[in-house]
Amino acid sequence: MNRIKRVVLIGSGNVAEALARTIGHCTEVQLVQLFARNPERGRQVAEIGQTTWTDDPQQLAAADLYLLCVSDRAVAELAASLPIPPTAVVAHTAGSVPLDALPAKFAQRAVFYPLQTFTRGRKVDFREIPIFLETTDDTLRSPLEHFARQLSEQVIFADSEQRKRLHLAAVFACNFANHMYALGEQIVGDAGLDFALLKPLIAETARKACDATSPITVQTGPAVRNDRTTQERHTAMLTEEPLLEELYRKISQNIWEISKKI
Amino acid sequence: MNRIKRVVLIGSGNVAEALARTIGHCTEVQLVQLFARNPERGRQVAEIGQTTWTDDPQQLAAADLYLLCVSDRAVAELAASLPIPPTAVVAHTAGSVPLDALPAKFAQRAVFYPLQTFTRGRKVDFREIPIFLETTDDTLRSPLEHFARQLSEQVIFADSEQRKRLHLAAVFACNFANHMYALGEQIVGDAGLDFALLKPLIAETARKACDATSPITVQTGPAVRNDRTTQERHTAMLTEEPLLEELYRKISQNIWEISKKI
Repeated sequence: MNRIKRVVLIGSGNVAEALARTIGHCTEVQLVQLFARNPERGRQVAEIGQTTWTDDPQQLAAADLYLLCVSDRAVAELAASLPIPPTAVVAHTAGSVPLDALPAKFAQRAVFYPLQTFTRGRKVDFREIPIFLETTDDTLRSPLEHFARQLSEQVIFADSEQRKRLHLAAVFACNFANHMYALGEQIVGDAGLDFALLKPLIAETARKACDATSPITVQTGPAVRNDRTTQERHTAMLTEEPLLEELYRKISQNIWEISKKI
Repeated sequence: MNRIKRVVLIGSGNVAEALARTIGHCTEVQLVQLFARNPERGRQVAEIGQTTWTDDPQQLAAADLYLLCVSDRAVAELAASLPIPPTAVVAHTAGSVPLDALPAKFAQRAVFYPLQTFTRGRKVDFREIPIFLETTDDTLRSPLEHFARQLSEQVIFADSEQRKRLHLAAVFACNFANHMYALGEQIVGDAGLDFALLKPLIAETARKACDATSPITVQTGPAVRNDRTTQERHTAMLTEEPLLEELYRKISQNIWEISKKI
């Protein structure tokens, strides 16, 4: 096929917003429409992408690529129900949804998975986000890659199995890391202190891991030193929080075990 | 007492290095000596602090403040064994060690705890690091605070109980967050992919939390959405890693429970 020039985005969530922002400012690619069920949010995301909005399937614009940025559950049903031309490229952005969740009636199916945490109203540098592509249609590989390279400097082909693992890894490195910040906030809060005091530490921890080949090599603290006295002092503060005490013990033990391997 | 002008640093670990670097470049305060048992590392840290090194207790220089940057276990014994003048200020930098671990023979005891993760050879902006001070000597409060303000813009008095909790919070927000990165690395590694792919995600996760009032308000992912289908897909990949599976389930459950409270 030829190059992907006209794109319709489907969805109005955080991924749709980030993609609208970046595709909307792309010179080689035109964001011709945003399709979304929620009128208020749909209009808002369309405006961010400098395009028009519709919630009427009959008004769906003609395009080379229909990019579904919707919840995992909605991918299959929405792709089947919308009057997308069977010759167009249909792709979804869901990390843990396999390629074949897209209906087989489309000859050109693909996955376009940007590995990042997207938040409403928050601009991210899309050019540094790794984009993982998948397609079983060999003729689609080159146009799909060319399209992705308009948006990011890191474009990688990965199959559904790899992508599922990437999504799982992202849950640990992002959602669970963020939850460790939240537990830190809870603990300083109990001492009458503010979460803001932890921010320089959080920022440096992430910077240090990003400067390292592996986060294992830059680990610090009582667990990696196997400092049991400090660990006992810490768990003694958590007797009224059984989950935190358990997480403390298990994560500490795992830090020590992993550190011995390097 | 008068201002703290002359400082001897004791220790050659990562905290000693960071303090040598910042005190060594201070105009109002002079780093007169570094005392450390390890000659090679002692000389190295002394050079960073543009000062002299000794490992001979008899050569310990005269100073207003003796700052012990040593392991938690070594604080009490080293403070007792060195010929520190009983009229000098003696302080330690250990988050989870109480003030009274310092021998009572010193009239002016203090704690000087910088809340940050320090790594050998890595420069950090000391001015943004919160420094937690403690002393039971009222006349020492003002000179101690004045000294700390030479180094950082964030100086807070906190008692041993608060500091112990700060240290515990730091373990979660730093060491455990870093371990979540390490588990992410392990998972992408199993899929034949590189840790570097997670770096933009890690950086954005930390930036987003630092821009927020609370990390709870910026949580994303299947746990906070209570998306059980994705969670089941994820845990199915972890059946051969019982600890990871358990952490996945418990942290996800806690994310969901906490999100309901806000």
